[in-house]
Amino acid sequence: MVTNVINEQSLFLGIDGGGSKCKATIIDENNNILGSGIAGPANPLHGYEQTINSIVESAKLALIDADLSIDLVSSLTAGVGLAGVNLPSLFEKMQQWQHPFKQMFLTTDLRIACLGAHNGEDGAIMITGTGSCGYSFVNGKETFIGGHGFPHGDKGSGAWLGLQAATTVLRSLDGLEKTTAMNTILLDKLNCSNALEIVEAIAKKPASYFAQLACVAFQAANEQDELALAIVNDGASYISNIARKLCLEGPIELSLIGGLTPVLTPYFEPEIASRLSAPTNPPEIGAIIFAKQQLAKQA
Amino acid sequence: MVTNVINEQSLFLGIDGGGSKCKATIIDENNNILGSGIAGPANPLHGYEQTINSIVESAKLALIDADLSIDLVSSLTAGVGLAGVNLPSLFEKMQQWQHPFKQMFLTTDLRIACLGAHNGEDGAIMITGTGSCGYSFVNGKETFIGGHGFPHGDKGSGAWLGLQAATTVLRSLDGLEKTTAMNTILLDKLNCSNALEIVEAIAKKPASYFAQLACVAFQAANEQDELALAIVNDGASYISNIARKLCLEGPIELSLIGGLTPVLTPYFEPEIASRLSAPTNPPEIGAIIFAKQQLAKQA
Repeated sequence: MVTNVINEQSLFLGIDGGGSKCKATIIDENNNILGSGIAGPANPLHGYEQTINSIVESAKLALIDADLSIDLVSSLTAGVGLAGVNLPSLFEKMQQWQHPFKQMFLTTDLRIACLGAHNGEDGAIMITGTGSCGYSFVNGKETFIGGHGFPHGDKGSGAWLGLQAATTVLRSLDGLEKTTAMNTILLDKLNCSNALEIVEAIAKKPASYFAQLACVAFQAANEQDELALAIVNDGASYISNIARKLCLEGPIELSLIGGLTPVLTPYFEPEIASRLSAPTNPPEIGAIIFAKQQLAKQA
Repeated sequence: MVTNVINEQSLFLGIDGGGSKCKATIIDENNNILGSGIAGPANPLHGYEQTINSIVESAKLALIDADLSIDLVSSLTAGVGLAGVNLPSLFEKMQQWQHPFKQMFLTTDLRIACLGAHNGEDGAIMITGTGSCGYSFVNGKETFIGGHGFPHGDKGSGAWLGLQAATTVLRSLDGLEKTTAMNTILLDKLNCSNALEIVEAIAKKPASYFAQLACVAFQAANEQDELALAIVNDGASYISNIARKLCLEGPIELSLIGGLTPVLTPYFEPEIASRLSAPTNPPEIGAIIFAKQQLAKQA
C-alpha cells in the first residue's frame, strides 16, 4: 500500500503485451513502482478486441494493486509495447484505438524489452522463450533477426527445442536413431508408453505446448545424452549466430531475456556468453522509458 | 461403357480412403476394371460421417462411371483401406458401420497400398507424398515406420521438404545462411518480396500447403543450390534409412509410391534405388485383392 501523496497527473503506465499475457506496471514521478497487474493475451495479430481489453484490464489491476482508484486510468501516461505491431497495418489500427489513457505511446514488444534491458540506452537483445528472436536499436537504427514463428522459424526457442526432442524420440522409437535416455524422459513427461501415444498427445498442438517439452531436451542434455546435446547445441549455436550478427550493429550491451535464459546460456560459445549482460529492467519498465523518451522529444 | 453381361453378384469394389480424397474402383469377376470414382476425404481420424459419406459417394460414382445402376451398391463386395484405422478404436468404429455393401473387408491404407504394389504378395513399400512412411507385410508380420504426421514427423515428405525450404530461406534472408537461388525461387513461388510477406503467407498453414512448396527445394536442388541439395539429400537419406530397416524384414520386393516418387528417387543412394521395383497396381486394386484374400480364408 502506498501512503505518500500521489501526484495523479504524473503517473506512468507501462504495458508489455504478448501472445500469452499482458503485464502492466504503474510508477510515480519519482520512479517508484506503485503496482502491477497481469491480464490475458494482447497480440493484435490474434485479436484486436482481446488486445485492447487485456491492456485496459491489466492497467486497472495495476491501479487496484497500487491502492488507487480505477478512475485514474484517464490520468495515466501509457507506454505500450505489443507483439504484432511490427506489421504496419496493426500498428495503424492500434494507433487509432480510442484508448482511455491521458496519452498513449505505442511501439513493439521488442523495442520496450530492449529499452528496459539497457535502461533506455541503445543496445541489443535476444529473446528465447516460447519463440526466439534478436533485436537491436543503435543510433536510431532498428534490426530484427528471426522471430518468424512456429514451426517454420524460432530456432533455439522452447517450442523448437520441444519439437526437435519429440521428432528425435519418434525416430529413435522407429529404430532410425540410437536409443538414448531422452526416449524415457519424453515418454515419462507425456505419460505415454509408445510412439503411437506420443503422436496422439502432440498432434496439432501449438507452439506453447511444444515449449513445455523443451525441458525434456535440457534434462537429457544434462545427462550427457548425445542426441539431446546435438539439439541443444544446434539451438544455442543459432542464437549465438544471432548475437554475432547483432554485434555488427555496434551495441554497447547485449542481453539474453526470456524463460530459457538460465538453461540455454551454458550452451553458448564462451565468446558469446561473456558478451552478455543481465537486463536492467523488465519490458514493462522499458515501455515507460519509451513513453518518457517520446514525451521528451515532444517537449 | 461396358457392353458385356455383368454378373452382378461377382462385382468387387476397392476403396482407398485418405485425408484428402477417397478413390473407388469396381471390377468384374474377370478382373476387368468397369469404372472408378473419387469423392472427398475419408480419414475417420478427421471425421467419421465425412468418411462414410465419401466411401459411399465414391462407390456410387464408380457405378455411374461403369454405366451400372447405383442400386447395385448392395451387390458389391468391398475391400476398404483407410488411413487412421491403425488406431484400434477407429478400426472398431468403422467395423460397426451399417455399410450398404454386400460385404465389407476393412484394413489400413498402408496394407492395401502394399498389396496393390506387389499384386497380393508379401512386400514392402515407402510412401512419400504430403506425408511419408514405410510399411512391410512379410510372413504375416506387419511393420510400420514413421508416418507420425506434421510437423513432428514425416521427414522426407512434401510437407517436410516445403517446411525446410521455407525455414532455410527465412534464415538466409536474416543473413544467417548463405544467399542462394532458393531464396528467389521461394519468393517468386509465393509472390512475396521479403521475409515478412513469406511469414504472413505460411503462418498456421497445414501440411498440404507446405507440400506445395516442396517443388521449391527440388527446383533449387536441380540447379545445384547448396542449401537445397542439403535439404533434399537429408530427406532422401531418411527414406533410404526406412528402406534399409524394412529390408531387414525380408520382403522380396520394395516399392516407392506417392507423388514425390519421380523427383525424390534420383537422390537415393544407388544401393536403395536399385532395390526399388515399380508398383504393380494402385492401392484401390490392393483393396480388392485384400477382400478376395479374406474371402478365400473364409471359404
